[in-house]
Amino acid sequence: MIYADNAATTKMSRSAIEAMLPYMDNIYGNPSSLYSFGQEAKEALEDARARVAKCLGCDPREITFTSGGSEADNQAIFSAARLGERKGKKHIISTAFEHHAVLHTLDKLKKQGFDITLLDVHENGIVTAQQVADAIRDDTCLVTIMFANNEIGTIQPIAEIGKVCRDKQVLFHTDAVQAAGHIKVNAAEQNIDMLSISAHKFHGPKGIGVLYAKRGIMLDNVINGGAQERGKRAGTENLSAIMGMTVALEEAVANLEKNSAKLTTLRDRLIEGLDKIPYGELNGDRKTRLPGNVNYCFEGIEGESMLLLLDDKGICASSGSACTSGSLDPSHVLLAIGRPHEVAHGSLRLSLGEDMTEDDIDYLIKSVTEVVTYLRNMSPFWRDLVNGKRTHVFAE
Amino acid sequence: MIYADNAATTKMSRSAIEAMLPYMDNIYGNPSSLYSFGQEAKEALEDARARVAKCLGCDPREITFTSGGSEADNQAIFSAARLGERKGKKHIISTAFEHHAVLHTLDKLKKQGFDITLLDVHENGIVTAQQVADAIRDDTCLVTIMFANNEIGTIQPIAEIGKVCRDKQVLFHTDAVQAAGHIKVNAAEQNIDMLSISAHKFHGPKGIGVLYAKRGIMLDNVINGGAQERGKRAGTENLSAIMGMTVALEEAVANLEKNSAKLTTLRDRLIEGLDKIPYGELNGDRKTRLPGNVNYCFEGIEGESMLLLLDDKGICASSGSACTSGSLDPSHVLLAIGRPHEVAHGSLRLSLGEDMTEDDIDYLIKSVTEVVTYLRNMSPFWRDLVNGKRTHVFAE
Repeated sequence: MIYADNAATTKMSRSAIEAMLPYMDNIYGNPSSLYSFGQEAKEALEDARARVAKCLGCDPREITFTSGGSEADNQAIFSAARLGERKGKKHIISTAFEHHAVLHTLDKLKKQGFDITLLDVHENGIVTAQQVADAIRDDTCLVTIMFANNEIGTIQPIAEIGKVCRDKQVLFHTDAVQAAGHIKVNAAEQNIDMLSISAHKFHGPKGIGVLYAKRGIMLDNVINGGAQERGKRAGTENLSAIMGMTVALEEAVANLEKNSAKLTTLRDRLIEGLDKIPYGELNGDRKTRLPGNVNYCFEGIEGESMLLLLDDKGICASSGSACTSGSLDPSHVLLAIGRPHEVAHGSLRLSLGEDMTEDDIDYLIKSVTEVVTYLRNMSPFWRDLVNGKRTHVFAE
Repeated sequence: MIYADNAATTKMSRSAIEAMLPYMDNIYGNPSSLYSFGQEAKEALEDARARVAKCLGCDPREITFTSGGSEADNQAIFSAARLGERKGKKHIISTAFEHHAVLHTLDKLKKQGFDITLLDVHENGIVTAQQVADAIRDDTCLVTIMFANNEIGTIQPIAEIGKVCRDKQVLFHTDAVQAAGHIKVNAAEQNIDMLSISAHKFHGPKGIGVLYAKRGIMLDNVINGGAQERGKRAGTENLSAIMGMTVALEEAVANLEKNSAKLTTLRDRLIEGLDKIPYGELNGDRKTRLPGNVNYCFEGIEGESMLLLLDDKGICASSGSACTSGSLDPSHVLLAIGRPHEVAHGSLRLSLGEDMTEDDIDYLIKSVTEVVTYLRNMSPFWRDLVNGKRTHVFAE
């Protein structure tokens, strides 16, 4: 099997699993209890918090453990909205190609009377700091822009956007779920006020994530209840998952340059190979993208059929994001970068893993090429294109 | 070590850990993906859902996996509130001694204009169906009453309360976090519309829980984002934890009668022993309580000092709930059942585990007796009581 869906989820690292086991078994004390057995858990929790903070370039007191990236996104955005509301500021800036954890949260705020500006995304899949600067108004309470896109992998100019927001005293949140552990994410150096990460995207466990919020930002609870996490996130601390995440994040950060270099080479080899398929095009900027992300549109292809045939060849890949699978709508990300409906249905995302080889890449190129050719030969739509009854979207 | 804080959290069962491991390691596919590797995860997820539903007496489609009991409580209550709001019904009935996951959620709704009635709790720690019937109004949209109290373990007449609610067509939610896996919890037989459970209270993993909601009840998202859980709970499914929870719940349900009988015997032996300590009193009904729960108030004792001295004797116990530790306020539960402030500070909760022996119980009795005597001898407050400068709250 070639697992090329690392943007959906990753295999846990051995050391992350090992880090979890003691806390699933013998060290099960509740960190909020007073006895020494619970204090042992409490110390591990605070040690993990400090280590995660170090990886993200912030203070341990700025770390809130959540059940994952979606919860962190929700909490960041709702918190900023509540803070803005109190000052009469009800305008939020985001982009049209955010993850649904951001977009659907913004939908809810819209119903509560917030004005939402979704910035257009350039066809290369990147928004600019200038666009943000131009969109900020006196009543803007939040800018939330993803660090790297989950479908097409394009990386946004986060430090610059953060600078613009800081200059204009507007809170800046970034959904860094796809970025953390893969490219440099540093709250202090990149002018970030709030950021969300999810452990299972960097070989940590599922069901755990982090919301970083700069000191002084009053968080509003998404989960109300007990006094855990300074009263900002109720629920008994999921210590084993926190320990697994911590180890996975440290590993990813320590190996970031090495992994990034390797993945970039593999990615570019894959792009070079897939570029040879006629009437197809890479989605998103060729270079300013995650080291492991490759995303193509092929004319005359249904994404789903392609995935099933690739599956027969032992390849795990996706079309759009796993979070929206089952939906018949074309990807909102591809529409945002200006792909027409008919090709937005035929996208293929291959997200590479650090353990892949050049042979794996060559097998991917060969398999995708075969599948695209096969499907086109069967497609009446493609016949119309070939016969000149329809016009091509892409060049040959 | 004698771990007598099983109401705070439990040690995971060996089979629950074993059930998690494959999903932490090799079966890591995203259940929302299309390839067969993801479908294997999807099938496991739906199998788990069916098995959990069977344990709870409901349909698999009525099960939503959450990050724990607090999230489930939040989602149940907010969902009912949103449904009520649309019909102009903004009255909610609960009790004064709910878990904070319920009370703090209700606080938020109060700020949104909801009218909250918190029923008085009888001094035995039980509310009656009649109280609920009397409190229901035309604009009541929800009754939320815990199945068993987390501090004093008293069990509420859930089926009767559910019947009253159903007759009056008011939604009924119960926080069954302390009950599930310990006493019978069955949605169909007990007239429950919504219920919350948390795996780590019955030897499952932390960070995972269930919200059951009867078909037809439209849930409102607490976590907005991807389309997981029929669009009602965003975030990549935490499959390993779900598998661990499923096995733990099945085990707990299968062994419920056996464990309950054993724990009840141990509990009553402990109560018999602690009853001999003068000027102390059991909190909550003597019989209608969780099989493993013992909770006492002792005059002239600070809860925290007692816990630290018990810790020295290798005993893990708690005063109030772990979720509110660090708070200097007396337990809201003990105040709700009418304990005066001065004794509500001196409570001790011993929550027993299935692996305990009679020897453990006898050691608990001996240790608590010693600690209470020791602390009273040191206490000026106690001296005043002995000298008649203060009046006793309890009989000798």
